[in-house]
Amino acid sequence: MSVVEERGISQAVIGRLPRYYRYLGDLKSQGVERISSQELSRIMNVTASQIRQDFNNFGGFGQQGYGYNTSYLYEEIGKILGLNKQHDMILIGAGKLGQALVNYMNLKNRGFSFKGAFDVNPSLYNKKIANVPVYPMEQMPEFIKENNIDIAVLTVPKAAAIEITQVLTGTPIKAIWNFAHVDLNVPSRIQVESVHLQDSLMKLSYNIRCQEDEN
Amino acid sequence: MSVVEERGISQAVIGRLPRYYRYLGDLKSQGVERISSQELSRIMNVTASQIRQDFNNFGGFGQQGYGYNTSYLYEEIGKILGLNKQHDMILIGAGKLGQALVNYMNLKNRGFSFKGAFDVNPSLYNKKIANVPVYPMEQMPEFIKENNIDIAVLTVPKAAAIEITQVLTGTPIKAIWNFAHVDLNVPSRIQVESVHLQDSLMKLSYNIRCQEDEN
Repeated sequence: MSVVEERGISQAVIGRLPRYYRYLGDLKSQGVERISSQELSRIMNVTASQIRQDFNNFGGFGQQGYGYNTSYLYEEIGKILGLNKQHDMILIGAGKLGQALVNYMNLKNRGFSFKGAFDVNPSLYNKKIANVPVYPMEQMPEFIKENNIDIAVLTVPKAAAIEITQVLTGTPIKAIWNFAHVDLNVPSRIQVESVHLQDSLMKLSYNIRCQEDEN
Repeated sequence: MSVVEERGISQAVIGRLPRYYRYLGDLKSQGVERISSQELSRIMNVTASQIRQDFNNFGGFGQQGYGYNTSYLYEEIGKILGLNKQHDMILIGAGKLGQALVNYMNLKNRGFSFKGAFDVNPSLYNKKIANVPVYPMEQMPEFIKENNIDIAVLTVPKAAAIEITQVLTGTPIKAIWNFAHVDLNVPSRIQVESVHLQDSLMKLSYNIRCQEDEN
């Protein structure tokens, strides 16, 4: 699949790929070898037409009359998501949320691996979080270059996040996974994906209110 | 604003409200009293027409020729998001991610407050996470009823999440903030908002791959 073919695929479609990947992984581990778009539609609670449209963006994955090959589809979507490559990461901000992410990721995501953590708090230096060493913040740009780090995981307060992002734009970092409660401005060569926990909780609060108003 | 007027507002619009709320909070704290949709458009990097369309879902917030009143807009969006009410929460699964969320939320979100945490690990009982006591899992349904808990924050493994969700549907819980790597099936009276960390990281991985293919 060339980038030319993929150009113009909306972020909405991309955003649905990990969910397909998750369901296909489950089906595969349950020993399901083939699945029709109708069956997939039923378990995933989306229309079969949506599934076919989404997959057509990537050439359709050749569904025959008897359905998709589960393993093939799982592998192909994995490749599209770039999961066949190892991604080396660093943690910036070794507080509680950052530490939890290192523990969580080093357990669950074999393709994503933390190589180092950086913090401004000297009491953390020479310590390790789930075998990941913590270094002084100043060493971060050099570490990214020397270790070919792809992804910086940002778990620092808002003001620090803006400052650190400026430092990161001077390094060959490819992406920022941002947990700070702020939108980051970066050159287009750096990919940003933000997890705004407070935004998510506010959306929940809105839906609770609407449900209460109905009762 | 009645629910009747709000019906039919898409989750996409709702999903954008917390971001407006965040920017308006920043503007307010910077002492900006009025802002035009054009200025807001520029800082938020969305079109002014999008902003006007979004706000028109809620009656438009009465923009005059000279712009929106920042404080008024901030308060109104806060009310729409249900942030003028206290939301009592419990944590289910007091592992590292859960502990990080309790620490994070008790610091940052005054409207959202953890009242208790539940776990199957007895070594955590009688301990506290940021002043929140940890109780045995069996006590969870009774605690929800007695303390009028609104939101259950689910930070347990996938299999446990499905099982616990079944228990939760037998309680008066209003919402689940789900961090387990699975989609939950609940009755429509229970609101679910999922934070799928792995999905978010996969989306980042996709965008890194596309950027690399271009080079």
